[in-house]
Amino acid sequence: MASLDAHMQHLGIEVVSVALGRAVLSLKVAEKHLNFNRTCHGGVIFSLADAAFGMCSSTHGVGGAGIAANITYQVAVQLGETLTATAVEVSRQRRFGVVQIEVRRDDGKLVSSFLGTSYISGKPIALPEA
Amino acid sequence: MASLDAHMQHLGIEVVSVALGRAVLSLKVAEKHLNFNRTCHGGVIFSLADAAFGMCSSTHGVGGAGIAANITYQVAVQLGETLTATAVEVSRQRRFGVVQIEVRRDDGKLVSSFLGTSYISGKPIALPEA
Amino acid sequence: MASLDAHMQHLGIEVVSVALGRAVLSLKVAEKHLNFNRTCHGGVIFSLADAAFGMCSSTHGVGGAGIAANITYQVAVQLGETLTATAVEVSRQRRFGVVQIEVRRDDGKLVSSFLGTSYISGKPIALPEA
Amino acid sequence: MASLDAHMQHLGIEVVSVALGRAVLSLKVAEKHLNFNRTCHGGVIFSLADAAFGMCSSTHGVGGAGIAANITYQVAVQLGETLTATAVEVSRQRRFGVVQIEVRRDDGKLVSSFLGTSYISGKPIALPEA
Repeated sequence: MASLDAHMQHLGIEVVSVALGRAVLSLKVAEKHLNFNRTCHGGVIFSLADAAFGMCSSTHGVGGAGIAANITYQVAVQLGETLTATAVEVSRQRRFGVVQIEVRRDDGKLVSSFLGTSYISGKPIALPEA
Repeated sequence: MASLDAHMQHLGIEVVSVALGRAVLSLKVAEKHLNFNRTCHGGVIFSLADAAFGMCSSTHGVGGAGIAANITYQVAVQLGETLTATAVEVSRQRRFGVVQIEVRRDDGKLVSSFLGTSYISGKPIALPEA
Repeated sequence: MASLDAHMQHLGIEVVSVALGRAVLSLKVAEKHLNFNRTCHGGVIFSLADAAFGMCSSTHGVGGAGIAANITYQVAVQLGETLTATAVEVSRQRRFGVVQIEVRRDDGKLVSSFLGTSYISGKPIALPEA
Repeated sequence: MASLDAHMQHLGIEVVSVALGRAVLSLKVAEKHLNFNRTCHGGVIFSLADAAFGMCSSTHGVGGAGIAANITYQVAVQLGETLTATAVEVSRQRRFGVVQIEVRRDDGKLVSSFLGTSYISGKPIALPEA
């Protein structure tokens, strides 16, 4: 279940740990992640959190699809820093799962908060090995 | 002002048009954009909308930073389709700008709605030419 | 279909117009709507937009439930002003509807943007007459 | 600091506890809070969470204004149940604060997750006693 697709792999996302209703992913900020202000791109931070959201949602072994997500940006992130996204499933009902993700810098500062809702399709998933 | 940074260029984002308080960007869905379901990655759709958000916000020539964003996902997008993100600044006050972005498929279907708030720093920006 | 429940009625919400995939509601800001800053409460603005979201979603005559909503606040609203919420269903698929709501002041200024996703249950609804 | 304005008082919101960067509020669901489905109105749940957001943000004694908020709805709430909103400030920088709120039922089920961003104006506030 701890697999990364092409988009995540290109971004340099790595899986730190995965458990039922929980996933921790990380990314080291490189040149390719920077915007014009020379800080990490908001789209990169979102993609890291979104990958943690998807991986966390898939830990029950049934398929789903993200239907809404919200992100806040608190502090800038510089080249060379490592971002860690910790996803925790805070609610899982018959049709919907809600996952809360925190993205932190090396110094522990909260970079972004992310709240995602997924629709549970109920189809079993068989992801390739990591 | 119609510039793309490294992250956007890698994703294959293209600028269609830019005007005051308005930006239109597009992206053709390639293999590298697909997730395990073989549909376009949510993070890619967000990044396209986010790029349109940033470009739209910058059309006044002063710097800013995204502080919150919300996205909804409506329909899946297949390999080979072209996504078009149309960003319109719906509000601009002294300190904050709000931008609404619609991401559509070739067939006109609304793929995602995106609502972003940026903080206006007030510093002039001088982006390189596209 | 143009009905208001007890909560909406107490708030003083009025129905301006309803059509398929569209609803316009209004509210005149009274003393009871003010917060400590003597401006209209964010919760009141949300409730007005949310009521328009619900009414707009119900225009197809089938039940649904809001599952996620996002609101931005742009300008303050004073006592005596009338707020108008215009809801437009921007997407409707088999299971989900997405509605965009704009809340404006008398002077036309955009007070809040609201983006809501509802789950379509498919059960017919029979609301009392307004 | 533990004060409730007219809108909150009318809704029946009560302050459970307030501390620096933290606020807990509750509301007992009454007839006036119900929608047509005879479950608690989404606008009421939002208002409770929003009140906790505002109270939590004000615990530093300086003014602020909510600029964006996001809410998800997970489970329905019946007449007579008590809702408890727990707000925790997860980030506070020079200009912005981010607060995460959880709204739970008596049985501990997570009803709603709420994520709010406020702009810190820096003006001291002197709220009346509760």
